[in-house]
Parts: sequence; C-alpha cells; structure tokens
Amino acid sequence: MERLQTADLPHVVVLGGGFAGLAATRALAKSRVRITLIDRRNHHLFQPLLYQVATAALNPSDIAAPIRRILSSQKNVSVILGKAVAIDIAKKIVQLADGEVKYDFLIIAAGATHSYFGHDEWMNAAPGLKTLEDAVEIRRRVLVAYEAAERETDQRKITQWMTFVIIGAGPTGVEMAGALAEISRRVLERDFRRIEPGRARIVLIEAGPRVLPAMSLDSSASAMRQLERIGVEVITGSAVTDVDGNGVTLAGGRIDARTIIWAAGVAASPLGKALGAPLDRAGRVLVNQDLSVPGADSVFVIGDLAAIKSDGKPVPGTSPAAIQEGRHVAANIAGLIRGEPLTAFRYRDKGTLATIGRAAAVADFGRLHLSGFIAWITWLLVHIFYLIGFRNRFLVISEWAWVYLWNDRGARLITGDVEPLLERGKSGEDRNRILSS
Amino acid sequence: MERLQTADLPHVVVLGGGFAGLAATRALAKSRVRITLIDRRNHHLFQPLLYQVATAALNPSDIAAPIRRILSSQKNVSVILGKAVAIDIAKKIVQLADGEVKYDFLIIAAGATHSYFGHDEWMNAAPGLKTLEDAVEIRRRVLVAYEAAERETDQRKITQWMTFVIIGAGPTGVEMAGALAEISRRVLERDFRRIEPGRARIVLIEAGPRVLPAMSLDSSASAMRQLERIGVEVITGSAVTDVDGNGVTLAGGRIDARTIIWAAGVAASPLGKALGAPLDRAGRVLVNQDLSVPGADSVFVIGDLAAIKSDGKPVPGTSPAAIQEGRHVAANIAGLIRGEPLTAFRYRDKGTLATIGRAAAVADFGRLHLSGFIAWITWLLVHIFYLIGFRNRFLVISEWAWVYLWNDRGARLITGDVEPLLERGKSGEDRNRILSS
Repeated sequence: MERLQTADLPHVVVLGGGFAGLAATRALAKSRVRITLIDRRNHHLFQPLLYQVATAALNPSDIAAPIRRILSSQKNVSVILGKAVAIDIAKKIVQLADGEVKYDFLIIAAGATHSYFGHDEWMNAAPGLKTLEDAVEIRRRVLVAYEAAERETDQRKITQWMTFVIIGAGPTGVEMAGALAEISRRVLERDFRRIEPGRARIVLIEAGPRVLPAMSLDSSASAMRQLERIGVEVITGSAVTDVDGNGVTLAGGRIDARTIIWAAGVAASPLGKALGAPLDRAGRVLVNQDLSVPGADSVFVIGDLAAIKSDGKPVPGTSPAAIQEGRHVAANIAGLIRGEPLTAFRYRDKGTLATIGRAAAVADFGRLHLSGFIAWITWLLVHIFYLIGFRNRFLVISEWAWVYLWNDRGARLITGDVEPLLERGKSGEDRNRILSS
Repeated sequence: MERLQTADLPHVVVLGGGFAGLAATRALAKSRVRITLIDRRNHHLFQPLLYQVATAALNPSDIAAPIRRILSSQKNVSVILGKAVAIDIAKKIVQLADGEVKYDFLIIAAGATHSYFGHDEWMNAAPGLKTLEDAVEIRRRVLVAYEAAERETDQRKITQWMTFVIIGAGPTGVEMAGALAEISRRVLERDFRRIEPGRARIVLIEAGPRVLPAMSLDSSASAMRQLERIGVEVITGSAVTDVDGNGVTLAGGRIDARTIIWAAGVAASPLGKALGAPLDRAGRVLVNQDLSVPGADSVFVIGDLAAIKSDGKPVPGTSPAAIQEGRHVAANIAGLIRGEPLTAFRYRDKGTLATIGRAAAVADFGRLHLSGFIAWITWLLVHIFYLIGFRNRFLVISEWAWVYLWNDRGARLITGDVEPLLERGKSGEDRNRILSS
C-alpha cells in the first residue's frame, strides 16, 4: 500500500457542497491532491425536489444527505462546516467566519439565492424556495392558511386565506403551483369540515409571455394546458409591482392572498463579489471559457455562481450543468498538476424536464418534446436515478408510492409557533368573536 | 339516514391532541355530542419515540400525524388550531389567544413540559425533549458538536465537544443516552477524519439512587449493566447544582461538556393553574377520583396534567395511563348525558418498557422482568403497534430496518444557522487560527 505524504500534495479547497462542488470533489477522488470541502451546511440538498418538501410530499431528510456520508469513502477529502466570507487571491487564503484556510487551487461553487429585484422588503411576505428551511417555512404557511380559513367566519377573509399566489413560472414556480393544486384538491379535501380546500384559488404569475420560458414553445403551451386542467390560474405578461402580507399588485389589478411564494429571481452568492472579478447583472462571475476567474490565479467558479456561454448560448443554472462544470474543472486541475494546459468547457444539453402534477409533466430532449404521462414517468425515473444516496432513493420511492396510491401526504406538519402566522395582518376588532357558536 | 341537529347536541371541548385528548375524542365517536378539539399544534406527537428524532434515527414526520387526518372520518369532531389561555368556569367558556369557545363539557388534556426546578436559566444550555422542535434542536447540537470537534485543534476543547451529558435517568434519559452511544459508536465513526466519534464520552446523571426509578430493582440493575456495556458512564445519587454552556457542576465535581440534555423534571401545563383548582407540587391538578375538577362543573382533567392515585399508588405520566383516562372520561360524559352517575377511574398497569440500544432493553410486566434482546423485541412490537396512523407505522419500520441493517442514519441534518452554536462560549483569541495548515 502506498502511503501518501498528504501534507506535500496540492491542496484543493472547494467552497460549497451542492451539485457542482460535490461533482468536482468526487471527480478528484483518484488524483494526488488533498481536498477540503467547506459548506455552511452539513448536508447536500437535492434542490430540484424542494417543492415536494414545501408541499408535504417528502420529508426534509428524503432530499438531503450529510456531505460527510456522501464522501465518507473518499479518503483524500476533509469536510468542514464553515462559512467563507472573503478570499485573499494574492495570499491564496479563504477567510472563514472563524478561521482561514490556505489553498493551492480554489473551486468556488457557492450557488445562488433569491433576488427580489431590489425589493427586499417583499421577502417576508413572499418567501422563496432555496433551502430546507425555506421549504419547511412554505409548508408551514400553506398548512396554516387552511387552518386559519377553517376557523374564519368572514367570507372575504376565507377567500384571502384560500388564495395562493406563486410569482414566477420557471420550473420551480410551475412545479410549486401544480403541487399546491394537488395537495388542495386531492389530499386536504377530506380533512376539513367547513372549508373545501379543493376550491382554493392557485394563481401563477409570470412577467414574460409564457410559462417555462427556457423550454420549447410546444412544451410551454402543453404545460399551460396541463396547469389549467388541474385548476391553476395562469397569468402571463404581467409583472408584479407590489407584494405585501395581504396580496400582490399587478399592472392589471390586485389579488388578495395571504400566502405568496417567490419563484422569480435568482441572485448569485456574494462570494462572487468578494473575488473582485467582473460580474454580470445577477452577480454571477463572468468566468473564462475554462471556468477560471480572470485575474485570479488557480481560482475557478462553477455552478449557479458562474456566468458562461457554450455554443453561443448561456449555460443554464441547472444541476446537470453544475455537475458537468464540476467534472470539467476537476479534470482541468488534474491536468494542470500534470503540466497540461486548461481546456474550454462545453455544455452538453441532455434535456429539460418539469412536472406539473400526478401523471402530468413536460420534457424537451432536443427536438423531441414529450408531455403528460410519458414525460412524467421520465421525470420520475431521472429524479430517482439522480437522487444522491441509495437510502434516500429507497425512502423517496416509498413515499412517492404512498402519495400516489393513497393521496395521503404524511409530512403535513406545522412546526414552530403558529400564532405569528395566524395573526399576520389581523385587525383588533375580530379578536373576540366567538369561534364556535 | 338520521340527520343530527348538531347545534342542539351537547358540546364537548377537548384541549390538547395528545394521547389523552385523542383517546377521549375517539371514544366519543358514537355519542350524540359535537366535539371541538383544540390544539396549539396541528399534529399529534408520538412522544415516546422523540429521542429517536433527536438522535437522527427517525424523521419528525415519522412520529407525528396531523390531528385532522387522524380524526378525518369521525364526523362529530371539528379540529381547531389555537391556544387556550384561560377558562371561565362560571360561563363555561374557554378563552383562546384570539377568540373564545363555549362548552357544555370540558376535557383538559394539555400535558406537561420540562421543569428546571426553579433554574430556568439552565434551559438554554440544557434543552429538554418534549416537542418536535426540541428534538430537532438536540439533533442539531449533537451533530454540530462533532463538526466542531473535527475542526478544533486544542485537545481540551475537542474533549469538551465530545462529551455529552444527560441529566435525569428516567426512560427519556436512559433511551437518549443509549441512542447517543449508538450513533457515536456505530454510525458517525466512519464519517470523520480527525476525531473518533466512537470515543465520545456519554454521561448519564441521576440524582436518585438508581436509573429507571419507576421500574423494578431487577430491571434497573439490568439497565445499568446494559448502559455500561455500550459505554455510557452512569453517575447516580448525584444532584446537579449548576449548568452552563460549558458543562455541569455536581456535588462531587465538574464535567466539562458542550452538549447537555435535560431529562429530569416535569412541570404541568399552566392551564392547570388557570383553572383555580388545587394543584400538586409539579402544578398538576388534584382531580377527584372520577377525573373531574373539584369546584368546576363539567370539567375534567386527564393525562400528564392530572394528579390522581389508583389502588393507593400515583398513576404514572405515561401514554397508556393517558389513553385509559381519556377513555374513562369519555364514558363518564356519555353516562352523564344518559343521566348516569360518574364512576371512579382505576389504572390498569400493563407494563413498563425502556430501550437502551440495539437489541438492549428492559421490561416489567407485573412480576415478570425481561431484559436484553427479548425485552427489545417486545418494545419494538409494542411501539410499532401503537404508532398512530398506518403510514407512519410503515415508514418507521422501513427506517428502523435500514438503521438496524446498515447502521446508517439518514436524518442527520443540521438545519438552521450553525454559527451561533459553533460560537457558543468561544473566546476571541482562537478566532484566527488556521484551520488547515
């Protein structure tokens, strides 16, 4: 057995344990490097299924796996729980909130968060969906809305509680709207006595001319039809001008709603800015064609934080793109160590998928556009296949089978204090009404 | 089909959807009453398995089920999410945080929380284990402790992070200590590079002379041996005199530890006090032998909030006792409506069980005292049988089978912000140490 003199090996530091960072780390498993992966969280998150946690189909732990466990058999990696706050390019040091790490090669895969397009005051009324905490918070709000409607006697307020607005009709918005319609129509319907959750109004708002703008016209039109079939009201070509705890304002009018979900904008991690490199409007780093950072020696940016074109088109902020970039940078670093030059990244589009509901989905594979049941089965297989960690795959299949067969979602838990939610926007006068008369 | 004139039926209000409240509600399913069940939370919690969530074996939703779903087929019940704050015995009204409810019969099953015996300042350093949020917080602290130890270079501090103290050796304390030893020795061992989780020090402290004081001497001694076999350090006859973020102080000395769990005292819900009835030292209502409240017409108290003796011995604060009390009160209310007198409650002890770890447990069934594998299998069957909701039962069995076969716990998620935890008690000087040199 060869014993590595680990301290002599080049030190690769990876910031972020998402799809990009994890792919890069895994692709360096056989290289003579030592790797330190740093993440603020101890888990890798399967973000494409986050909306299923938000709509109580899956448990948080079904779509997340401890980064340590994923990498436990890869001996050249140390995993550190920590938050990178700055990067000293000259000294090759990553500054953490409570310490620092020296690197020979740095891979930044810090991802993105929501952007409210300069309206951060909307954040509280309309949370986004990027982390497990976001998903649990949205689940809480949705379930509390039905509870509040059941208790309410004023018809206008019942309608407000039973109106759900999703802003942004990209994949997250479409999947969220579809799943909300499903849980309302199929699952919650039998649990309540006074209200009929099946009559909830679910509104999906898109500023652009069509839903799923990154997909083909065919698939976009099909998604629209499938959404309307399950009772989602779709408003396109209409930008939101204001959001508060009681509804949203559009150019064309106002929608009263107590539950609003933000699925519109994406802002890159502030680490991009900390690099001092050129950024695009969303704060993403304008990397070189080999994913290296202009003016920063041995630093690479991958995943949602990188802005790069391939074949003249921007590479999308999806997990397949992130994984491809991670593997490419790993290969480039291994090459650099062997004295080879950097090679340019080229994105291979393997297709795009979005689910709308039970047996409803759309898929684009180049010129092949699928919809309905076939697209949904494809979506199912792809997601089960890519779910990281066999245990999660096994449990997610059990959960999905259960939901599909019984229309029952077990993860319908409201945790935390519900009073602040129930009280949101409530006026004093109706505090003392008799609930049960 | 008979149509009930529901408004004319006697109105039974149940406060609390725990074992007691739910048992009472279900037992009234066939009675000509209308029932309103009010709980601050939307879910019934299977508290006996809470320690498994705290040690990452189970998901929160595995041991909790929406109260609405449990009762969805029982047509004479309305479920309301709300918090009872006061009771007007004269007017027969329950005051909620945001409304009020009139009752004809009131069943109070509001349960209990932790008591720090007048030292509420210990709460932050030593959280207890009563709610899902508590369990997730403890899981977070345990997992963060190992993460922090892995990053630390100072041996004294590593030892502090890797010392876990559980205060109180009742069933919760014993099960928690056993499960912590298991996760450290079997599960986390392979995930870390620098530390050896298997060497963690797990200390169980009991003020009384023996562990599991409510069980037989045999079972208590056997539990002690089984705990020591899996590496739990048991200290009996030693009261804790101080608790802070860096350890606990005993009469005999001090134990440095960053993670401390409180499993010692129980305090009844403040609703007992709000009744104005006589209370015992723990704040429980000293009910009449038929579980009615002295001086309060048509009001009953059941579950952990009730102090009652049966055959001269106090009825324990366990779920079987709560369920028996719930059913008894339901039968008494149905009897009252038919004009029959109230009957006295009598507790039937069906046995006591506690697990210590994988294939380790103790059980008392009257004079029959079991231990080891047989007791563990019994524990397993009883808990699977009593888990409310078939879906949970199915998933819990899957999870347990997985944990048992693979020694892998998937629910190892740290959610929320970790920095405050990592920073707890950290001095300024070591902030800038180089983590990876």
